[in-house]
Amino acid sequence: MRAVDIIRAKRDGGALRPDEIAWFVAGLTRGEIPDYQAVALLMAITLRGMDELETAALTEAMAASGERLDLSDLPAPTVDKHSTGGVGDKTSLVLAPLVAACGAIVPMMSGRGLGHTGGTLDKLEAIPGFRTALGTTELRAQLARVGCAIVGQTASIAPADRVLYALRDVTATVDSVPLIAASIMSKKIAEGVGALVLDVKTGGGAFMREEAQARALAERMVAAGRRAGVRTEALITSMDAPLGRAVGNGVEVAEAIEALRGGGPPDLVELCLALGRRMLVLAGVSADDADAASRIRRALDSGAAIERFAALVEAQGGDPRVVDEPARLPAAPRRDVVTAERAGYLAALDAEAVVRAAVVLGAGRSRAGEAVDPAVGLVLEARPGDAVRAGQPLVHLHYRHDDGRDQARALLASAITLGDDPPPPTPLVRGRVF
Amino acid sequence: MRAVDIIRAKRDGGALRPDEIAWFVAGLTRGEIPDYQAVALLMAITLRGMDELETAALTEAMAASGERLDLSDLPAPTVDKHSTGGVGDKTSLVLAPLVAACGAIVPMMSGRGLGHTGGTLDKLEAIPGFRTALGTTELRAQLARVGCAIVGQTASIAPADRVLYALRDVTATVDSVPLIAASIMSKKIAEGVGALVLDVKTGGGAFMREEAQARALAERMVAAGRRAGVRTEALITSMDAPLGRAVGNGVEVAEAIEALRGGGPPDLVELCLALGRRMLVLAGVSADDADAASRIRRALDSGAAIERFAALVEAQGGDPRVVDEPARLPAAPRRDVVTAERAGYLAALDAEAVVRAAVVLGAGRSRAGEAVDPAVGLVLEARPGDAVRAGQPLVHLHYRHDDGRDQARALLASAITLGDDPPPPTPLVRGRVF
Repeated sequence: MRAVDIIRAKRDGGALRPDEIAWFVAGLTRGEIPDYQAVALLMAITLRGMDELETAALTEAMAASGERLDLSDLPAPTVDKHSTGGVGDKTSLVLAPLVAACGAIVPMMSGRGLGHTGGTLDKLEAIPGFRTALGTTELRAQLARVGCAIVGQTASIAPADRVLYALRDVTATVDSVPLIAASIMSKKIAEGVGALVLDVKTGGGAFMREEAQARALAERMVAAGRRAGVRTEALITSMDAPLGRAVGNGVEVAEAIEALRGGGPPDLVELCLALGRRMLVLAGVSADDADAASRIRRALDSGAAIERFAALVEAQGGDPRVVDEPARLPAAPRRDVVTAERAGYLAALDAEAVVRAAVVLGAGRSRAGEAVDPAVGLVLEARPGDAVRAGQPLVHLHYRHDDGRDQARALLASAITLGDDPPPPTPLVRGRVF
Repeated sequence: MRAVDIIRAKRDGGALRPDEIAWFVAGLTRGEIPDYQAVALLMAITLRGMDELETAALTEAMAASGERLDLSDLPAPTVDKHSTGGVGDKTSLVLAPLVAACGAIVPMMSGRGLGHTGGTLDKLEAIPGFRTALGTTELRAQLARVGCAIVGQTASIAPADRVLYALRDVTATVDSVPLIAASIMSKKIAEGVGALVLDVKTGGGAFMREEAQARALAERMVAAGRRAGVRTEALITSMDAPLGRAVGNGVEVAEAIEALRGGGPPDLVELCLALGRRMLVLAGVSADDADAASRIRRALDSGAAIERFAALVEAQGGDPRVVDEPARLPAAPRRDVVTAERAGYLAALDAEAVVRAAVVLGAGRSRAGEAVDPAVGLVLEARPGDAVRAGQPLVHLHYRHDDGRDQARALLASAITLGDDPPPPTPLVRGRVF
């Protein structure tokens, strides 16, 4: 086989055979196919697309490019959840211990935030001492003992994805449904989970702004997971306003703890329950949603969920006292507040502008490798649909530097829309792909 | 500016601005933009296209990437001819001295053959001693003295084209009208000619098989030339059967000498006259085609054309005695002949199969950098439309090795179609783009 022939076939709109895709990815991983040929294929895929079979073959080839964990010897079924990234999304922090408390094992491998989406690892590292880099042996032992772990991907998982992702980022080949699907699913498949629930977000604060795109991505990922033997389904969920009230790192951990104690903002709770039910059903722990819902209810009410979170934190070197004393989380030295300029309804709260405000405060990174400030962030005091009085606090800023605050205030001013009437309600879960 | 934004704009089908194109090409030439970003843009251009203005801007930027000769101080107007490549095409060897003998200066910068098209430089190097690598000073002196030169491109001409071409060859981004147009025209513009006649070939033996493609390429090149201040036009010509009778290196030189003496096969003569007339008119030497035709006739009849060829050969270190004694050209040690299996008409002679036969004999290269054998080749004894008797010689093979001969015979058998009726005549010059 020759790389140029494979590139030409895709350039001309043809479908690549699984053996061609496997050969190309293996050659790239071994460094035998140069970057520029990889990019030629990536751009051809971006513009010509890939069908379901090709996407599954690309996913498999990328999963096969490195280590593939076998978690089948663990004492309970394994299940993971993956989100395509949204603002204020702390569901992973809630779901890993919650679903573990219900009887499944949850090995979550997560990423760091870049640009507008905050990373789960960044959030957890707000807990003093928390380690996210675990070796495979340590990970297995923790999963057997605690039932859950939230760790970074090791270098041995899907190395082809790292090579391709670094190239896609600088060659305008990120926005491609088959490439996104293969990137996400190859890592999940290599991680060895038995079941996977995907949270594919759509709306102004999501990578996939249009619901049709989100659905197409969900369908492609579900198909690729199934073909690789992972029970996979996806929920399509709204990401127009931030999820919950907290946007940042420490503040999001505090909100996740609230939810694990049975409280928390209604949208965060609703999404955690929706995803958690499907995780338990797909894992085979629950026969149906009703059984899963009652298990989750019991885990929250009994304190099993929050106890499991404390165990997770402790197992990964973090200070478990944050669970009972959230004041031990890093706190920003200064506070400010944005208030309502008039009475009315909060008509919209643009998630994209909100997260940009959090990033300028230091809660996120605009370049890979930058440090994030665990203490700063935003707490939203009103949600779209809420009636507000003039002068009422809308957003609290936890900040460190004045210029960050000034920029954040300007961004928040653009994020907030007040109106005379409440906005029409929008469903949080828009659909399910299975 | 950022390379990724320019790539994204083209990926999404937008038109790039001239300053964006200039910035990208300059960055690439200086090695500041990596190969993989160049390839991303090349594939996006291949699939999304470029309009006339973008193509002209790309051409200008590539021409500006290196040295730009100024030939305006030469004692006569300059004109060049460029062909997109055909089988048996020795028109450059005829036209450079012929048009120089008519009063224009012809600085031809040419390439080597790769794959199916033989290169003009390879053909000339069949003449013992002939040098194709001349420095700029030497080139100028020869042009002033002899009126013509046929040389290889120096490394200082359009270096961006060399970088891009090397990448295109291995990333399936060769087949793009704007990229082909910019590659050809950037070099011609950098060479500093005042006028240019393009021979854009179409048919089974041409790079552009479809006439519509050929016309699109011609239009794009003519526009780019005009915008850069070069008087440019193109003839669209047929390349279904080889041009003339000889296909090889030494054998083609011999045929060019025949034509310069006023003989030669009718199709070769017709094409040389058609191109030569337009060269003289565009150079401003002749007011119209009729005047140009009579100048050409005189140059051939008087011996001025063949004398100019001898002067060219001598100036470039070649043995000028080949002009009067073609036996001094390298001769292959062995001969073979393919004869007609039946009586009838030669209905078709597939140029592509014929040239593959010449390549397996050693007359061409299948990989860049390979040596070519100046002595081997084919001489066609019948042309499409000719009546043939059973057993009549159709092709003489000049060969060195038996296995090459056997492969060549098989290819020639597939190239030749005999029929009961003469094929409909096809015009050699199909159109003119100006």
